[in-house]
Amino acid sequence: MRERLATRHASDVLDADGPVRPLRVAIAGFGVVGSSVARILCEREDLRGALQLTAVVNRNVARKRAAWAPESIAWSDDIDAVLGGEVDVLVETIGGVEPARAWVSEALRRGISVVTANKLLIAHHGRALAELAAVHGARLRFEAAVAGGIPAINAIERGVAGDRLARVGGILNGTCNFILSTLASGAASFDDVLDRARALGYAEADPSNDLDGVDAAAKLVVLAAVAFNLELHLEDVRRQSIRDVTAVDCEYAASLGCTIRQLSIADRHGDAEVDAFVGPALVPLDSPLARVFGADNLVLVRGQYGGDVTLSGRGAGGDATAVAVVSDLLALSRGECREGIARIDRAQPASRPPLPYYVRFVVRDRPGILASFAAVFARHGINVDAVLQRPGHPKSRLPFVMTLEPCGQEAAAAALNELRALDAHEVPPVAFPILSGGVHGA
Amino acid sequence: MRERLATRHASDVLDADGPVRPLRVAIAGFGVVGSSVARILCEREDLRGALQLTAVVNRNVARKRAAWAPESIAWSDDIDAVLGGEVDVLVETIGGVEPARAWVSEALRRGISVVTANKLLIAHHGRALAELAAVHGARLRFEAAVAGGIPAINAIERGVAGDRLARVGGILNGTCNFILSTLASGAASFDDVLDRARALGYAEADPSNDLDGVDAAAKLVVLAAVAFNLELHLEDVRRQSIRDVTAVDCEYAASLGCTIRQLSIADRHGDAEVDAFVGPALVPLDSPLARVFGADNLVLVRGQYGGDVTLSGRGAGGDATAVAVVSDLLALSRGECREGIARIDRAQPASRPPLPYYVRFVVRDRPGILASFAAVFARHGINVDAVLQRPGHPKSRLPFVMTLEPCGQEAAAAALNELRALDAHEVPPVAFPILSGGVHGA
Repeated sequence: MRERLATRHASDVLDADGPVRPLRVAIAGFGVVGSSVARILCEREDLRGALQLTAVVNRNVARKRAAWAPESIAWSDDIDAVLGGEVDVLVETIGGVEPARAWVSEALRRGISVVTANKLLIAHHGRALAELAAVHGARLRFEAAVAGGIPAINAIERGVAGDRLARVGGILNGTCNFILSTLASGAASFDDVLDRARALGYAEADPSNDLDGVDAAAKLVVLAAVAFNLELHLEDVRRQSIRDVTAVDCEYAASLGCTIRQLSIADRHGDAEVDAFVGPALVPLDSPLARVFGADNLVLVRGQYGGDVTLSGRGAGGDATAVAVVSDLLALSRGECREGIARIDRAQPASRPPLPYYVRFVVRDRPGILASFAAVFARHGINVDAVLQRPGHPKSRLPFVMTLEPCGQEAAAAALNELRALDAHEVPPVAFPILSGGVHGA
Repeated sequence: MRERLATRHASDVLDADGPVRPLRVAIAGFGVVGSSVARILCEREDLRGALQLTAVVNRNVARKRAAWAPESIAWSDDIDAVLGGEVDVLVETIGGVEPARAWVSEALRRGISVVTANKLLIAHHGRALAELAAVHGARLRFEAAVAGGIPAINAIERGVAGDRLARVGGILNGTCNFILSTLASGAASFDDVLDRARALGYAEADPSNDLDGVDAAAKLVVLAAVAFNLELHLEDVRRQSIRDVTAVDCEYAASLGCTIRQLSIADRHGDAEVDAFVGPALVPLDSPLARVFGADNLVLVRGQYGGDVTLSGRGAGGDATAVAVVSDLLALSRGECREGIARIDRAQPASRPPLPYYVRFVVRDRPGILASFAAVFARHGINVDAVLQRPGHPKSRLPFVMTLEPCGQEAAAAALNELRALDAHEVPPVAFPILSGGVHGA
């Protein structure tokens, strides 16, 4: 069985001068990304020596068939028939965990390499699938799973392979970045901006996975696997929703020389301890993180030797994501043999180092409130750095901000819990970390 | 002969599970970058299975010997003895064309792969050396030759390999970026800032290669080779010195919502036509190009499918550049087989598409000057967009600015030549292109 399947391996279609025949590519899922991949493979004549699109698998495939696609492509709704046919690589652009996991597993078991754009699949099952690939002599690649057209995985696996990375992350969710960068430009409420994002196709009907950080956390798990060779689980990533951010917060942030972004940051301490966070944070206006607008993404890495490197570009979109898929296909056609994330250790939890915090309250104003709040922070050993109160708000629903000097995550959380129990609040108080110091923040 | 040498090839120290023994690495040149490479190889225990530093070659090597280096390293001033010994890869960090070219050629002829940080060597002889490598079954890699720790070559060769690139370039010279970003912050003349750059070690005693764009042009030639698979020669790159930029220009640029940067841009038109330029340009303040400060670098690519991708980070420095070298070494240890720039076609010249221009004059003011200048532009079919004159300058030496609507390079040059011949100038007029439209400009 292995003998027959072995003929599918990339190494068997290569000799010293390059591929002896093109890799035969099947695409599973013919939505925005899958059809862009197909179009690039059909349009670009210079790729034909390396890659040949042979099959497309999709439910009700008849309605998907594209007029520009050549006759030679087989259209099928039967994955088993396609995997049993002449195919060297399966491109998976279905999204979601099932049936993607089942299809990808079956391909790998048959020695068919897989290129996927599926962040959830890799975040949940990346290590197991990479092991399966290794056992069957296939390859698993997933450049498109993180940050669309930004070649983050390649940059980390190869471009800065010579460094020892201490941080990876960035702005990984275009929906949140659109909402927060639009909110910062003023003149609209969170809900209005969310509606606009829906109208533009940037947000889904139920945007929870974006707003609450699930999407970005999945991408952060994938980045951390590659950057640290450590396996994080989705539940290891502390998440805070950007639903906590209001237009008032953007005003206060601006008066602090900052703007608010949904950041995803994984920091490694020692060999295997990782602190990972997704949520709103204040970033200085002169940081590259503050200069990412609309649905763009930014990926940053911080190396022990090379310092900070950032990559930015389109975080989503069919064509940009398809470029990442095709780049992976070309790497397979060259037989590049990076082993990937099959043998990575489990990450250990780490506590976040002290950070300054922004805390926003909305209260029914009365004498002594400020003193009572400050007393709570003092009891937890936290110094208040500044108190800000912008004019123009009614005393019955008064927003104001306290910034805290760097303090531990636990102390900040405990103080905030105690504060929440007080009866002055019109809206529960919220706290965001403030990133400062260095290009990407401390 | 080939049989014996063939044992040195990366593919012979690899099996399906990775390297069977470490690649033996010799470093030629033990300056800032070479010694950083050696230190990383000695410090990082996790690399020892893949890479082993066996020799260092340098003139008067005795004075270079580092206390932290293990006894097992051979220190030599005889390149032939080192290349004749047990070595799989030569790291070349000598810089300059000779003797680097001779040493690298000899290594490749012996089947020894080469990793180089030498932009001039690759700009002048990259294609010939890549051919030599291909003939002898060796590899030639040069990530460190462009933009220090930014993994630009990897990102282009692999990360966006699936795209068809139309533009490559960026901010490739840290010295110029330090000078121009400092100049824009005000309060100093060009010469004062240049002195400060010298004091900080950012500029050499003779900074001509930096200021006049030779250094950046060499890097642009290397990027274009990889991005377009086209061979540019250094003399194909139009260069303008940043010595033309004064503090007054930074003030005028700011009033136009721009700042001035030394940009390096190569644009491909059609298959093989390339327009390449290095020199000062006005970039909008909200462009990523305007957010590169100090000696940092930024590399941008623009793809037909994926749009704009930017990479930024440290453009120089021993450790950042050494990371790029070590990343290349790791790629060799994995036997990655990208063929490189051995078989690229000669680029054909292309004319630059129309661009808006900034033209700054310094005149002895008298009635009619503006009309006479405008008439010259009109005769060349060029529309003046705006005239700017900031207060506070004497009439005997009055700087003012005309911005031009998009016009061809040739028309702008002809008009400027005609203007230069007029007798009103205290300083010859200068013109810089204005980049606008899109993240990185049109």
